[in-house]
Amino acid sequence: MSETFHAMWRSLRPIGRSDASGGYRRYAWTAADADCRLWFRMQAEARRLDVETDRNGNQWAWLGDPTAGDAVVTGSHLDSVPDGGAFDGPLGVVSAFAALDELRARGAVFERPLAIVNFGDEEGARFGLACVGSRLTAGRLTKEQAYELRDADGISLPQAMEAAGYDPSGIGPDPERLARIGAFVELHVEQGRALDLSGDSVGLASAIWPHGRWRYDFAGEANHAGTTRLVDRRDPMLTYAETVLAARREAELAGAVATFGKIAVEPNGVNAIPSLVRGWLDARAADQGALDKVVTGIEAEARAYAERHGIDLTVVRESFTPVVDFSHTLRDELSRLLGEKTGSTGKVPVLGTGAGHDAGILSESIPTAMLFVRNPTGVSHSPAEFAAEDDCVSGVLALADVLEGLACR
Amino acid sequence: MSETFHAMWRSLRPIGRSDASGGYRRYAWTAADADCRLWFRMQAEARRLDVETDRNGNQWAWLGDPTAGDAVVTGSHLDSVPDGGAFDGPLGVVSAFAALDELRARGAVFERPLAIVNFGDEEGARFGLACVGSRLTAGRLTKEQAYELRDADGISLPQAMEAAGYDPSGIGPDPERLARIGAFVELHVEQGRALDLSGDSVGLASAIWPHGRWRYDFAGEANHAGTTRLVDRRDPMLTYAETVLAARREAELAGAVATFGKIAVEPNGVNAIPSLVRGWLDARAADQGALDKVVTGIEAEARAYAERHGIDLTVVRESFTPVVDFSHTLRDELSRLLGEKTGSTGKVPVLGTGAGHDAGILSESIPTAMLFVRNPTGVSHSPAEFAAEDDCVSGVLALADVLEGLACR
Repeated sequence: MSETFHAMWRSLRPIGRSDASGGYRRYAWTAADADCRLWFRMQAEARRLDVETDRNGNQWAWLGDPTAGDAVVTGSHLDSVPDGGAFDGPLGVVSAFAALDELRARGAVFERPLAIVNFGDEEGARFGLACVGSRLTAGRLTKEQAYELRDADGISLPQAMEAAGYDPSGIGPDPERLARIGAFVELHVEQGRALDLSGDSVGLASAIWPHGRWRYDFAGEANHAGTTRLVDRRDPMLTYAETVLAARREAELAGAVATFGKIAVEPNGVNAIPSLVRGWLDARAADQGALDKVVTGIEAEARAYAERHGIDLTVVRESFTPVVDFSHTLRDELSRLLGEKTGSTGKVPVLGTGAGHDAGILSESIPTAMLFVRNPTGVSHSPAEFAAEDDCVSGVLALADVLEGLACR
Repeated sequence: MSETFHAMWRSLRPIGRSDASGGYRRYAWTAADADCRLWFRMQAEARRLDVETDRNGNQWAWLGDPTAGDAVVTGSHLDSVPDGGAFDGPLGVVSAFAALDELRARGAVFERPLAIVNFGDEEGARFGLACVGSRLTAGRLTKEQAYELRDADGISLPQAMEAAGYDPSGIGPDPERLARIGAFVELHVEQGRALDLSGDSVGLASAIWPHGRWRYDFAGEANHAGTTRLVDRRDPMLTYAETVLAARREAELAGAVATFGKIAVEPNGVNAIPSLVRGWLDARAADQGALDKVVTGIEAEARAYAERHGIDLTVVRESFTPVVDFSHTLRDELSRLLGEKTGSTGKVPVLGTGAGHDAGILSESIPTAMLFVRNPTGVSHSPAEFAAEDDCVSGVLALADVLEGLACR
């Protein structure tokens, strides 16, 4: 791949990287996010693309007339989970610019407008809700709901946008923008080991598992850890612990995944029995029935434990995304385009995923497809996340083939 | 009790109080701590006492010549745990000033020097180690060890002292100061229900249970919560949860108490399997044998669970205080002094406690005793901590009787 491809990675690598963990902390509307956005603008301008930020804070880089309609859009996001890896998000954006470079090198002539997009706040690391930029655009999150979002310091989303120099007053559905798009293709590092197990560099997405986040508030009674008899305690940490183990059991039974990865404890003192333990459940399954089973099973077990310990339990569903079945028409076309190149058909593996993506949010509004690039360990949302350079190059070439087939006929 | 007594509580009440929780956040060397210290100085000066701050940041208010020797000292601390109650610490300081007022009203003539003390950083809420002020004075914490203490923001103890305007360079053992003290009596709200169950307002301490803090670091592998198969996970939250429940079981078996009240999770993201779960164990028992049994039992269970889940477990003992058996001579004298007043002997109940105190730290160096005031719910380290005014007044009068008997013969 070209020197430009490596230069993109070099310039992006230090932005928002923690020296302590080696992971990324690129949270929405922070200084690191601003640096990512500047990086995006510079890449776009170096390629003579027209850059705009839409009403919801998503960045677009256009080749051709944005208002002409039937545009082909590719891209992903640049923000990260806490101590996330280098590839989840950025691989899709870097590959988009690299695929454009490849098409220009091939002398391709574009017959449809092309846009590269950087969706805002995909991971939801700061405000607790994923895919805020695409949800707002698709009308799946209202302005009123978005205004209620707050970070751990109590700063609201509109306050954070204003502090970053963006006017939040116009956020909300953007049907005109969506109506101009004929197809959206998001390239993403795989977050599992399906391609590694099948021995393929690149795959196509079939569906995204239904998934959601539930906040469990276990309220007990703060007391002195040294002097309160065990029988007098209402210790919510015990109920939390039982619920963590129940979640694992229920997920195993349902063939699903369930995780308590985030916790907040009050007062969080070594010698104080907690008054409140707040834990967040992330649960996903291949279909709605299995997900319902695991979620109701966990809550039922938690309520039984809470009653036994005198704990008040509140469960709030903070977000939910139903199953996403990507456009079969677009997927078949991509499969054909990728098959043409290798000289055979139907060779690109098609796989489902438990991870949510902006492509999943947009798939109700416009035809969307996803390309996955092999992840040899399956590790993601971690500094150890990795993709081999050869596979990344294969991803760029596959994306270029797809864009050429869609936009350059 | 006098108007002065109520005025002391009124002026102390708002300092470091959280409107959100109703609890106190008076942490060492913060602005709230400075306000507490100013309050102490003003109370002392209003009573024409000589105020000094010693090399370890403890405040002393003297009546009589500090260098005369054989002084009688009373007092406690003003700092708090996170969202602590109003009585743990302050009751001993307020009662000390009120007892002095009572003795002056009685026309008592002092034959020994009297001091009222406010020990610094008793709770260890900020730097993780309890009784820092008294430990340093007694030579139970070295300057080098104290310099290593850091708060959650990475600020070291000496940095915090300097920021508060105190010179940390002189911290360390203070045997000359201890040599001047003939007896230390600390009055404290009870942190259990023994007096409530026996129907007494005031009691005397027999012993402090041996107790300690252990940090458990469960290291696993960060990964995506949606895409990582259960069998591929090394999720330290599961091992933490199992260990929390093991601690409860082992404590029940040994007749001890064991608590996981503080936790720190990395990266602490809703959709990320944690890379690290750090939990702090607080364990206490009536004797060393029972404590050893519960502590080794919990660690053994935790190690077995860790091995099963591929988790690396590190256990560090952060602090430990052996059993404290308070001076029998001083306790018998206090019992006699309190008995004389009621006209009988041996009527004041004597009770052990699971809570650590500065009196426990000093008991190796000087004769110490403790008076407990009834806590009707037993709740402590919580905004709900409470003592009835009648019982607080009984405590003041008992302390006055004791001080009169010791210092005014």
